[in-house]
Amino acid sequence: MSLLPKIKRKNDAPEFGFGNVTNNSGFRILNTDGSANIIRKGEPKFNLINIYHSLVSMNWWRFNLLIIVFYSVLNLFFASLYYIFTPEGIRGMEYTNEFERFMEIFYFSAQSLTTVGYGRLYPSGHLCSALASIEALIGLMGFALATGLLYGRFSRPTAKLLYSKNIIVSPYSHPRFLEKADRALMFRITNERTNQLIEVEAQILFSYNEDLNGKLVRRFQILNLETSKISFLAMTWTIVHPIDENSPLRNLTYEELSKIDTEFMVSIKAIDDTYVQQVYNRSSYKWNDVVFDAKFESTLFTDASGKTGIDLTKLSNYIQINQ
Amino acid sequence: MSLLPKIKRKNDAPEFGFGNVTNNSGFRILNTDGSANIIRKGEPKFNLINIYHSLVSMNWWRFNLLIIVFYSVLNLFFASLYYIFTPEGIRGMEYTNEFERFMEIFYFSAQSLTTVGYGRLYPSGHLCSALASIEALIGLMGFALATGLLYGRFSRPTAKLLYSKNIIVSPYSHPRFLEKADRALMFRITNERTNQLIEVEAQILFSYNEDLNGKLVRRFQILNLETSKISFLAMTWTIVHPIDENSPLRNLTYEELSKIDTEFMVSIKAIDDTYVQQVYNRSSYKWNDVVFDAKFESTLFTDASGKTGIDLTKLSNYIQINQ
Amino acid sequence: MSLLPKIKRKNDAPEFGFGNVTNNSGFRILNTDGSANIIRKGEPKFNLINIYHSLVSMNWWRFNLLIIVFYSVLNLFFASLYYIFTPEGIRGMEYTNEFERFMEIFYFSAQSLTTVGYGRLYPSGHLCSALASIEALIGLMGFALATGLLYGRFSRPTAKLLYSKNIIVSPYSHPRFLEKADRALMFRITNERTNQLIEVEAQILFSYNEDLNGKLVRRFQILNLETSKISFLAMTWTIVHPIDENSPLRNLTYEELSKIDTEFMVSIKAIDDTYVQQVYNRSSYKWNDVVFDAKFESTLFTDASGKTGIDLTKLSNYIQINQ
Amino acid sequence: MSLLPKIKRKNDAPEFGFGNVTNNSGFRILNTDGSANIIRKGEPKFNLINIYHSLVSMNWWRFNLLIIVFYSVLNLFFASLYYIFTPEGIRGMEYTNEFERFMEIFYFSAQSLTTVGYGRLYPSGHLCSALASIEALIGLMGFALATGLLYGRFSRPTAKLLYSKNIIVSPYSHPRFLEKADRALMFRITNERTNQLIEVEAQILFSYNEDLNGKLVRRFQILNLETSKISFLAMTWTIVHPIDENSPLRNLTYEELSKIDTEFMVSIKAIDDTYVQQVYNRSSYKWNDVVFDAKFESTLFTDASGKTGIDLTKLSNYIQINQ
Repeated sequence: MSLLPKIKRKNDAPEFGFGNVTNNSGFRILNTDGSANIIRKGEPKFNLINIYHSLVSMNWWRFNLLIIVFYSVLNLFFASLYYIFTPEGIRGMEYTNEFERFMEIFYFSAQSLTTVGYGRLYPSGHLCSALASIEALIGLMGFALATGLLYGRFSRPTAKLLYSKNIIVSPYSHPRFLEKADRALMFRITNERTNQLIEVEAQILFSYNEDLNGKLVRRFQILNLETSKISFLAMTWTIVHPIDENSPLRNLTYEELSKIDTEFMVSIKAIDDTYVQQVYNRSSYKWNDVVFDAKFESTLFTDASGKTGIDLTKLSNYIQINQ
Repeated sequence: MSLLPKIKRKNDAPEFGFGNVTNNSGFRILNTDGSANIIRKGEPKFNLINIYHSLVSMNWWRFNLLIIVFYSVLNLFFASLYYIFTPEGIRGMEYTNEFERFMEIFYFSAQSLTTVGYGRLYPSGHLCSALASIEALIGLMGFALATGLLYGRFSRPTAKLLYSKNIIVSPYSHPRFLEKADRALMFRITNERTNQLIEVEAQILFSYNEDLNGKLVRRFQILNLETSKISFLAMTWTIVHPIDENSPLRNLTYEELSKIDTEFMVSIKAIDDTYVQQVYNRSSYKWNDVVFDAKFESTLFTDASGKTGIDLTKLSNYIQINQ
Repeated sequence: MSLLPKIKRKNDAPEFGFGNVTNNSGFRILNTDGSANIIRKGEPKFNLINIYHSLVSMNWWRFNLLIIVFYSVLNLFFASLYYIFTPEGIRGMEYTNEFERFMEIFYFSAQSLTTVGYGRLYPSGHLCSALASIEALIGLMGFALATGLLYGRFSRPTAKLLYSKNIIVSPYSHPRFLEKADRALMFRITNERTNQLIEVEAQILFSYNEDLNGKLVRRFQILNLETSKISFLAMTWTIVHPIDENSPLRNLTYEELSKIDTEFMVSIKAIDDTYVQQVYNRSSYKWNDVVFDAKFESTLFTDASGKTGIDLTKLSNYIQINQ
Repeated sequence: MSLLPKIKRKNDAPEFGFGNVTNNSGFRILNTDGSANIIRKGEPKFNLINIYHSLVSMNWWRFNLLIIVFYSVLNLFFASLYYIFTPEGIRGMEYTNEFERFMEIFYFSAQSLTTVGYGRLYPSGHLCSALASIEALIGLMGFALATGLLYGRFSRPTAKLLYSKNIIVSPYSHPRFLEKADRALMFRITNERTNQLIEVEAQILFSYNEDLNGKLVRRFQILNLETSKISFLAMTWTIVHPIDENSPLRNLTYEELSKIDTEFMVSIKAIDDTYVQQVYNRSSYKWNDVVFDAKFESTLFTDASGKTGIDLTKLSNYIQINQ
């Protein structure tokens, strides 16, 4: 039994690449970070693109730690090779015991890997010289790699958007929708960063279970928006779906949203002014993120000089309305 | 009280992400460099994207100075570490007093950081060798970073457009608008650089205060343009809004523009032929930048051989017209 | 004699850049990796873009091997120069025979090329010092090149799509096509990688020979799709051409597809979420890849916790249907 | 006096950013390499973007020569500083005369700049050590710059298109234009490189002088094309403007094209499959490049195995037709 009005076919499932997933155990389809909450079996284990992706998207503490660990391990590896195969090849060492001897070899290795090559410690003999040549090559290639990764980390355009914690159903009146809609579904976004987002577009995809002769089928439907594109995200933007007579949410209550395992998948598309590139951002609201009969608080304030500002900390604030 | 004709709803505020900012103390909403003149409270203090952005967009003198300062400070920092913890570790020093000794350590530090490692000065002992290994690593990573930043500085497409200082209201006649418009609002742009801008698009957003039952509300409206896209910005381009009967500027005088705190926000979009990338440029004219009854001077000239040229220095020149 | 219904002119040959190729000996026009199977005569022999392209697209084993080979050959080249022209210029060598002497020169060369310059071996005299200066410059430029190539390899967006091995003709019923189509041509794709593909678009181009008064002419025609764009390729996507009354495949059998040397060229366009860039992918199905009266197996499974997953290994699986 | 039919206003001058240039002395407006043939006065003298542009677009011989010159000059500059201010600071020198002394200093400078630092030559004393530190920093920054430039040179997408030398007027018959056009203006292009160009679009802009009451005014008009977009440039593409009754070329002869100083500006837009980026290419045909009553030769051939190929050397070949 479907609680929903007849869906126009053009808004139906196939357009979203989720096929007819039935997710009736209540899992999200889209995680709040915008990734798909779906298991993939049979994927190739080793995948350089994935490795690159995690190296450019991990946080800076982990990245720097990784560089240090990698450098130490590589040093240790070469030091062990010298120690095992050609300890006599390294000249100029000063040591009094075996540990100090290994450490001298380790420092020689570091001086080769970084190509600093002071020369107090130096290689002699075929094996040691050859190993040192290879180590210097690997060192240089490693730093070439690090250069690429550092640039990749900086130059990758990512929109850091802040979303209001909830998606709310508010009383609503708008000249264009006056007779048709008296309530609207809305959430708010703002740019977490100072860089400018322009040509910002939003889409809300309403996803729910439909009972088709006892079998649950997952449905997807785009919700009409009051405004789906703004040219400049300088402040906050409230994305509004007017619940008019054509809205699939027309008569739905909180209980019904829960019953059909509602999920609102939102996607934002914009141009980042720093990198001058298209950026994409997705998130999702589950039925228990919906608040009925509420109104967002204004984030605007005016400072002493009369200049307008916005307070990002108030983005999720709403006021409950007694009807 | 509104001086303006009824605004078509589709051109109303929501599309521009400025919400209903009321800026009645006369501040610009958009700075002439295209950034938003709005205070942001609650932003994260530390933001790598912002740091990257300032590093790639600061001028070259400051960038080079920063590199030198950074190099010196890092050198000094490591020199201090050696001096404090392991001054005996550095061998081969030549000095007669404590200052010279510190300077020798400083130069050893520089030779490690740049990985030049001549070898007259060299590390000995655990602590000193370990510190030197770390310094060489940090040096290499620092130069990897500098490589990325240098590339980022060069490869970032930015349109350097020159705008005429004023936006003027001229007598106007155009076959397409003949019966409807006898005046037009116009400004001129040209490319400051020799690189070619193609597929250039312009938009003028007219922003003003409307008195809504005693409360000032900020309104935004796109102005129709005679031509909103050109395929090649080889010369100058005069962007023209014909003040026809549908124009919100129909009967506005300079005094009225001032009274409603008018601001014209202009945005230009183009493809940069050197980087083959989309570039965006914004600026703004305030009511006191408007000149009535004027006409732009031609920037064209023909040289001795009959070849056509433009004179960029004449871009803002206009001639007052006695009506 | 043409087996096909009259082709609408707007879908005819010129739009695809293949002109009127007649490929009646049964070669593919488009290889399965998306490149054109066409000989090009008169191309410039040496082409840097092609070299760059192969360097960034070859697999990692070959790339690393190439780096090692290049490094060895360059070392050997400079070692030979020193050995021939200025063997006395290199000081600090330790050797007992001519081979060891050459190897010492080789290691000196390696130490110069990598700029490690320990200093046990060092140049003396004009020619040797000058050669060493040039070698160090070439070494640095080589590593600059390697840095660029490594970054190019990582940052090049490529969609690795998996295509079903066959393109099948299935029984079909869809509300939108109910009365018109009872069969459909379909193939399936999925993303081989974990990165996300968004705004995915598909096109099938049907190519065949037409007998025009005894002369075979190659024809090209776009097939209408049930859905030609999805917003998110999270699972698999079955691209479906309903064989309705307007379809050029209306009454074609396997034998007829073979006779007119059919080829289905498919092209996929998407946005890669890791690089935030447009990616393009093409492939092709020849008439002998077509399977009639079959149905794709579902790739969906549900794990113990009720979470949905897809099994990539089942992508090409189909079930034959007895009609 | 105008020889041309009335121009539809929507195709008129403003869209092309050339304003009302009158170029009656017969100069091209657009050079064949796609740059504008227009003098720019008042441009800033020094412009980093222009310098970057020439560094990434100059040919490889010049680029490599520039690197060598730059390296030599920088070496010489530092060598002179050491020689003048602190010749005693460099230790380990071996020389018998003043020239050899300077050369030893020069090699020390090279060893510092490349950070190879063998150590036979080493700095001693404040000034020399400080200078050497600065030189090593500058060396590293220089190679950082070179890395960026090398990457910039490789990663800059450029379409190398071959254009037929002439633009020809051929007899023409096409089902879509049958009754309206019996001649067509056409030129041919092909990709000079092996990389693939997809989604290729063409535009022909017809530019000519109109006599407006004795004053020559430059007019611009887009010509309708039989096909303006192909999805894949695998072979050659003949871009065809059917000279139908709406064509401004309807009754024009070679003499008239000359009289009105005709120029056909062509622009091609495509996606480069190697870099997955939009590329733009422009060229121009002047009236004396037009050939009447000719037909392009086919570039197609079939090899022994029956495989189709194209011969790039035949691109400009045409056959004169006796009417």
